[in-house]
Formats: sequence, C-alpha cells, structure tokens
Amino acid sequence: MIKAISYAGYDAKSPLSSYEFNRRNVGDNDVHLEVQYCGVCHSDIHTVRNEWGGAQYPLVPGHEIVGIVKNIGANVKRHKIGDIVGVGCMVGSCGHCECCHIHLEQFCENGCTLTYNGIDEDGSVTKGGYSDNIVVNEKFVLKVPTNLQLPNVAPLLCAGITTYSPLKHWKVGKGHKVGVIGLGGLGHMAVKLANSFGANVVVFTTSTHKKEDALKMGAHEVVLSRNADEMEDHANSFDFIIDTVSAPHDVAAYMALLKHDATLCMVGASPTPHQIASSSLIFGRKSLSGSLIGGIAETQEMLDFCGKHNITCDVEVIPIQKINEAYERILKSDVKYRFVIDMNSLK
Amino acid sequence: MIKAISYAGYDAKSPLSSYEFNRRNVGDNDVHLEVQYCGVCHSDIHTVRNEWGGAQYPLVPGHEIVGIVKNIGANVKRHKIGDIVGVGCMVGSCGHCECCHIHLEQFCENGCTLTYNGIDEDGSVTKGGYSDNIVVNEKFVLKVPTNLQLPNVAPLLCAGITTYSPLKHWKVGKGHKVGVIGLGGLGHMAVKLANSFGANVVVFTTSTHKKEDALKMGAHEVVLSRNADEMEDHANSFDFIIDTVSAPHDVAAYMALLKHDATLCMVGASPTPHQIASSSLIFGRKSLSGSLIGGIAETQEMLDFCGKHNITCDVEVIPIQKINEAYERILKSDVKYRFVIDMNSLK
Repeated sequence: MIKAISYAGYDAKSPLSSYEFNRRNVGDNDVHLEVQYCGVCHSDIHTVRNEWGGAQYPLVPGHEIVGIVKNIGANVKRHKIGDIVGVGCMVGSCGHCECCHIHLEQFCENGCTLTYNGIDEDGSVTKGGYSDNIVVNEKFVLKVPTNLQLPNVAPLLCAGITTYSPLKHWKVGKGHKVGVIGLGGLGHMAVKLANSFGANVVVFTTSTHKKEDALKMGAHEVVLSRNADEMEDHANSFDFIIDTVSAPHDVAAYMALLKHDATLCMVGASPTPHQIASSSLIFGRKSLSGSLIGGIAETQEMLDFCGKHNITCDVEVIPIQKINEAYERILKSDVKYRFVIDMNSLK
Repeated sequence: MIKAISYAGYDAKSPLSSYEFNRRNVGDNDVHLEVQYCGVCHSDIHTVRNEWGGAQYPLVPGHEIVGIVKNIGANVKRHKIGDIVGVGCMVGSCGHCECCHIHLEQFCENGCTLTYNGIDEDGSVTKGGYSDNIVVNEKFVLKVPTNLQLPNVAPLLCAGITTYSPLKHWKVGKGHKVGVIGLGGLGHMAVKLANSFGANVVVFTTSTHKKEDALKMGAHEVVLSRNADEMEDHANSFDFIIDTVSAPHDVAAYMALLKHDATLCMVGASPTPHQIASSSLIFGRKSLSGSLIGGIAETQEMLDFCGKHNITCDVEVIPIQKINEAYERILKSDVKYRFVIDMNSLK
C-alpha cells in the first residue's frame, strides 16, 4: 500500500482537516502520480457537505488534478516517469457499454467511477486530489502540454472540459453569436474557449464589476441580465447559449434570446427545477439541453487545444491550510476565477 | 368582393353560429377555393374562446382545409381550376427574412399570417376554413394527392405536418425507438408516420382503452404512463420522444426514458410551465425541444409522402351544425381521432 496525506471532510458540517490513508499499490495498468496542484470545484463543497447525498467519510475531494508521474505499472504505455499529467472527474468506467465505446465515459451505462466518493476497482471509496499522491488507471490519466503554467492547468480538467465539450458538440465556430451565462469558474473558461473558436461572445452577468474582466478574457459584449431592455435587445439572436449558473435563475428569459433551431445548454446544476413553458421551445424549434464534463479522448483534445492556443484558467493559488476559507469565499462568488491548491503545502 | 358563408364565434363564450362576410377578390397571385372539408383542431377552441388572447370577433376558425380550385389569378402557375388543394395554418409570410428563405415560414421573423385571426395582406382579419370558400396566395396552397380520401386528408394540414416535421428534423428512421406521448389527433398521426419511417413505436397513454387502436395504427408497444414499473422498464432507451399532450403533465418522467443525446420534442402547448431539473438534461446530454407545424415546402413533402404511403387521419365527419357539440367532445378527449366538418352542410 502507498501512504497518502490529504485534507478530508470527516462529516457534513466540520471544516476539512488533515487525514492520512493508504492508496492501492500501483497495478500493471496504473500510473502513480505526485499531485502538484488541485483545483477547487463547487462540486467539492456540495459533495463533502453531503448536499447531493451519499457522502462517505472521511471524504477527500478534488478532481482537477495536475501532477508528476512517479511510477508506472508494467503495462503502461501512454505515460512515463517524470511526465506532467492530469486527472479529472473520472478514474474508471466499464469500458464495454455503448457510451464507453463512443468515448462518452462520463455517461457509462454501468456508472463511471468518480475521482472521489466513487467506488474504485478494488471496492474501496475513491479519494481525490486534495492529497499528495494518487494511483489511477492509465486510461484516465491525461497528458498536460508542457508550455502551460501548472496551477492554471488544473481547473481545465473539470471547468475546461465542461465548457469545451458542449461548445464543440454544438459546433460553435466563426461568426456564431454565443452567450455565456455567469462569469465564474466555468463561465470564464467558456468565454476564453468560445472566443478562441471564433465566436462573437456575449456574457450575461448580474455583477457590473465583472464587465472589465469579461472583456479582457475575450467577451465582445457584456449584458446585465437584470436589465430587461438590454436583454430585449438580444431577442432571437443567439446561435448558442451556455448556462454556467448553478444557483436558481430564470432560464426562460434566455430561451427568448435564442434564434430558431438554437440551443441553450446547461452545465451548472441548479438545486431547484427550472420552469419552462412549452411555447418557449415550440416557437423557433428551440432546445434546452445539458452537458456533463466530456469523455477522456475529448478531455485530451481540449488540453492539447489549450496548449496550442495558450488558454488556461485564471486562478488564485492557496495552501491546503486555507481550504475552508476558500470554500466560504466560493459560496460568496468571491474568487477570480478558481482556487487551486498548491499541494506542496501538505509537506 | 366574394360572398362567404361560415360559422363564427361572436365572443369568447357563446356557441359558434352562422355568419356571412366578404372575402377579397381573387388577386393575380391568389387561388380561390371552394372548401370541401375542414378539420377541427384544439387550437380552434383556444382561439375562439380567447384562451390565448387577441381574439378578434366575429372569428371564423379552421386551418385544416381541403377544397377544389374554383378560380385563379392571372399569375398563378402552381394550381389550376378543378385541382384538389389544401390550406394549413398559414396563408402568408414576409418572404424575405432568414426563416422564409430557408423554408421555415412558420417562424417568419416578421410574423407569418395565420389562416384565421391573423392580419391579411389587405389589413383585414383572416377568416378560416369553417366557411364555404377561401382566397389564398398560391404559395400557401398545397397540392393534395388524388388517391386519398378528402375528409381524412384535411387534418394532415395541421396534425399531419405538426408530427411529420419533428420526426424528419430529428431524423427518425429504421431501427430507432420512438415514443409518442398521447394518442389524440396529433398522437395518432405521429404513430402512423413514425411507423412508416421504420421506427419501433411505443405509445404512452393514460387510457387503457386506446391500446388496441394504437397497435392497429402501427404502435409496437403501449405503455400506461401511470404505471411506474412499466415506465422504469424503458429507462434510458428512447432515441426520440414526441410529446403531443397539451394538458399539464410530468415531462421530467419522460426525460428519464431518453438515451444519451436524445431529444424529447413537445408539439402540444401546455397552459402551465413544465418543471425541468437541470440534472435530467445534464446526465446523458439530453434535449428538451419543441416544434411548430412545418414550412410550406415540407407540408407539400408530407402530403406527397402520405399519398405515396396511403397515410391519412382517422376522422369523424360532422356537419357544421354539430360544431359546438364537437368542441365539448374534444375537451373530453372523446373523438377518434379528429373531427372534420363536411362543408357541404353549410349549403
């Protein structure tokens, strides 16, 4: 067994604190990596506080992991010792269902294995990236472009792929008018990526003070979503809207901004259902859709794309000892735009 | 001016009764037709009772019109006197917007002209097919295949195209598993059409007594939607679901039956918004969409397809004097499966 040191939640209410446990030994198909940086995703908070149910404690969050390969199993071909690699939201899937065959492991019909609070190959509960090391099947380990800053790469493994995948799936490209609802961890990546795909990017926000940042990141226009006149100016004009907001909000107001045959895709999970009038879809043959991270091949494609176009996340690097403070700041949307834990702080 | 006799609503509450008015003279691009049959659509009731607002009385409903060409304008090329023709939900559109250019006149950015209670070219309020004749621009007049029974053709102009268009748009074909929610005027056409496209058709209904009819029409299986076990058996298995129900119902329960990347398309307009959890779309990248009739070219394609495959509506033919009784029966879902008015009863 491999000793790991980490920060974990011990129950739904207490602050995270230090925790030691054992990782499985490096199997023939495994990569053992020393975690360098781990991004802090809102899902980490939902899970560790058991807001989605099913939390198994002690719970080690973290699924935006960048590290250095320390060891590899006998059969590992894709990675070698010393490589800079990443691990995202999944560390396994059945490999033989229809979804796995078409590289949508996130929709594995037998359930993909989540990087934390999932059930691992050996039956143990998976433990995530708020730790000094991790052992992962090589198929779920990604190559990280060497030209990018590692702390800024970490959130690409979740926030990056979560926005890249729907922009690609709905074929966002040159000349398209694309809306991004919300400028947080997901939203700011959507802006950068949609801009890099050649789209005309409009950000919807409730925060006037985010306007300058949005324009710097590549937005062409910023709309204050509480201003009905500004919203009305964009009626029936969008080719695609990506909705990154996970707080309750009025999705219907945005359906009215879509062109005929256009799609609004949700990537943030609101805790309450949305109210959707059928007429808002029928008139204009519009679609309301959702998207969940991306498959492993597409995650690699995204990393390669970001390497080529020098796209990364805007981050605040923190030591692990500040994680509980970071959680409180995330809940107040007080982060520009993603916290990333420097795992060397664990030593 | 051309004299017309009809049945009209004089206000939101009174029964329909006879009404005489003048149609415009036949313009250079117009077709004048003697109405033979006119289908009775639920929209007729909503409109004449002002449930959707904006009713202008006296209001002559009817947008599932089949008739014989009596006269044509000087420039008319597509139709000649004596032809059997149809008119659906639209009698005009701007002709120069993006939607008109791509043959989606129903989404005309300047508003298509509805067959009744719309504003016609000459500024008058359009009056529909519950009348002995109608004058319509030739572009909005369809050719009716001569091998089909005329009363059974009439509802194709609305119920037929409303279901044909989304089945084609979402490329329903051989081997697809397709759900049809509701077996009424729209639903029974969806079953016949989806079957003819080669799909494996499953009907969802709350009425056990409709099972036999559904199977006769081409359904391969009938699921009682109130039976949770029967519903659960179909989880994550549908390539496409068409939802023809306009009463409030639980759309979310059907989202769970879609495969990854599949779409539920609503063609019935529920009076209350649907409650949709974002998770029901995010997991599986599913889409909730809507569709509205179809463009004129596609309506002609649908009629030609129905002629070739001998597909028509199941109808109950009534004289116009029974229209108010028919409305009450429609509201109780007591019709198999569409009322069609024999307009010769007006004489």
